[in-house]
Amino acid sequence: MTISREQEQREADLVAEVLASFGGCENPRLLELVSALTRHLHDFAREVRLTEQEWKAAIDFLTDAGRITTDRRQEFILLSDVLGLSMQTIAINNEADGDATEATVFGPFFVENSPGIEIGDDMSGGAPGEPCWVEGTVSDNRGEPVPNAHIEVWEADAEGFYDVQYDDERMAARAHLHADDQGRYAFWALTPTPYPIPHDGPVGRLLAATGRSPMRASHLHFMVTAPGKRTLVTHIFVRGDDLLTSDAVFGVKDSLIKDFEPQPAGTPTPDGRDLADQPWSRVRFDIVLADASPASRPPLAARSTSAAPTS
Amino acid sequence: MTISREQEQREADLVAEVLASFGGCENPRLLELVSALTRHLHDFAREVRLTEQEWKAAIDFLTDAGRITTDRRQEFILLSDVLGLSMQTIAINNEADGDATEATVFGPFFVENSPGIEIGDDMSGGAPGEPCWVEGTVSDNRGEPVPNAHIEVWEADAEGFYDVQYDDERMAARAHLHADDQGRYAFWALTPTPYPIPHDGPVGRLLAATGRSPMRASHLHFMVTAPGKRTLVTHIFVRGDDLLTSDAVFGVKDSLIKDFEPQPAGTPTPDGRDLADQPWSRVRFDIVLADASPASRPPLAARSTSAAPTS
Repeated sequence: MTISREQEQREADLVAEVLASFGGCENPRLLELVSALTRHLHDFAREVRLTEQEWKAAIDFLTDAGRITTDRRQEFILLSDVLGLSMQTIAINNEADGDATEATVFGPFFVENSPGIEIGDDMSGGAPGEPCWVEGTVSDNRGEPVPNAHIEVWEADAEGFYDVQYDDERMAARAHLHADDQGRYAFWALTPTPYPIPHDGPVGRLLAATGRSPMRASHLHFMVTAPGKRTLVTHIFVRGDDLLTSDAVFGVKDSLIKDFEPQPAGTPTPDGRDLADQPWSRVRFDIVLADASPASRPPLAARSTSAAPTS
Repeated sequence: MTISREQEQREADLVAEVLASFGGCENPRLLELVSALTRHLHDFAREVRLTEQEWKAAIDFLTDAGRITTDRRQEFILLSDVLGLSMQTIAINNEADGDATEATVFGPFFVENSPGIEIGDDMSGGAPGEPCWVEGTVSDNRGEPVPNAHIEVWEADAEGFYDVQYDDERMAARAHLHADDQGRYAFWALTPTPYPIPHDGPVGRLLAATGRSPMRASHLHFMVTAPGKRTLVTHIFVRGDDLLTSDAVFGVKDSLIKDFEPQPAGTPTPDGRDLADQPWSRVRFDIVLADASPASRPPLAARSTSAAPTS
């Protein structure tokens, strides 16, 4: 598309005018954010030669997202997720640091005040699914064990639902525990299964219109905290899952794909638990925590649970 | 800020992964839009090193904007307006074309089925304000009159309110008329006065936090349509208004600033109307319409009123 020099100038002048309007902003970081947002937003509109119809469609999309959002449904987070912005924010704020376990998206299903369990206990809370023995260690970047790390775990049940999606107020398939003084931990969970992100709203329509799937690869959530360590928010994924290469929110990292080893019914369990005639699985996840940088703020997830961590 | 090469690569790989996820999109224009949106959004987050707290603040901002938006209040349009995106979209879709009158923002206060008036009639509908005689011509880019152009006009009253902001269902300070067969038009309106955009929501808080004013420069809205011509959506502004350089939505263009000449009480009116002891003003606005390009779609404003135009 050819644009006249005068037209180019009009558009550039407008961007300059908007940037200048923020000249009185006294917060330097806010000034940086609104200035960069203005530049990138205008660059987008000018590059694609956004039509008025498309602008209106964007307004309608955001309006619909606002309308469907409630205390239990967050369409704007879903939008950020499916555009990869959530995962990019995680990447930016959890920089590569030696062998430190990679972070991934927090997701909308974490709940404070999960039940406390002991090492070896079952976190499923009666949620349906195949039992899965999860074990591993928590260590630092130098290979030293991190004693007594606080571990939050949560996941969907075999039908693909988190407890917060149940009709009652039950808590299930979520818990917290502490590693022992050698950094060792273990618990019973459910073998993760895939599920779709909520896709009956505008984000679901966007995925459908662009030929994308709303499915998330099967995963088990972890949030691990320890004094002096960078908080780790991550998942582990199931090697062999068809959805690993098309996760709707781009949460999969190769280093987070683990072997969930199937165990036929009758296989003796590590702790002697009697599973009758159920098959089960087992997985090992050795966690490496980066040191907290002295200047770093705790990540949002850790701060939002600051009232909850120990019990 | 220094970012390691591995970190750079992780972030770039994520953008590539998101772009690849749209590979199955069968609508080429939609593919172009979501790809460009993804690139610019990630460029923004990476450039500013967006923190998780800032990401959360953005989610909360959009959530609040959704909550305050109703059929009569559109916070997402306000957001687009104050970031200059609305005006940029207008600029992109109304390219400079010889002497054609410049377009500006449509705004949220247009209403279909405004009262029809004759040339010389009063469009104020009893709304409070100083009378203003508005006259001019409608011509094309070659200086030829455009006969019988359809002219919609609307404005705020002297208290800064549009009729749709009144508590009752009254229509006032809006009307439509037709130019005569020589392209001439004239009507009585109100001398425009300044008013703030709605600023009791998240957009108002953003303006306050960045040291900006919510005020719009005084203006009178026009939408002019004629067969074979590009629809013109514009305002005229009042020369001398202090707010011309700080219009909250960047709608002011030099070419749209007009002389509203004050007329002391008792000055004879152009049409002999008796204004008793009221002062009044007069303004001339000669409108030049660009030819519609054969391939162009009608702009949104014109299409949304397609049921209304003549009467």
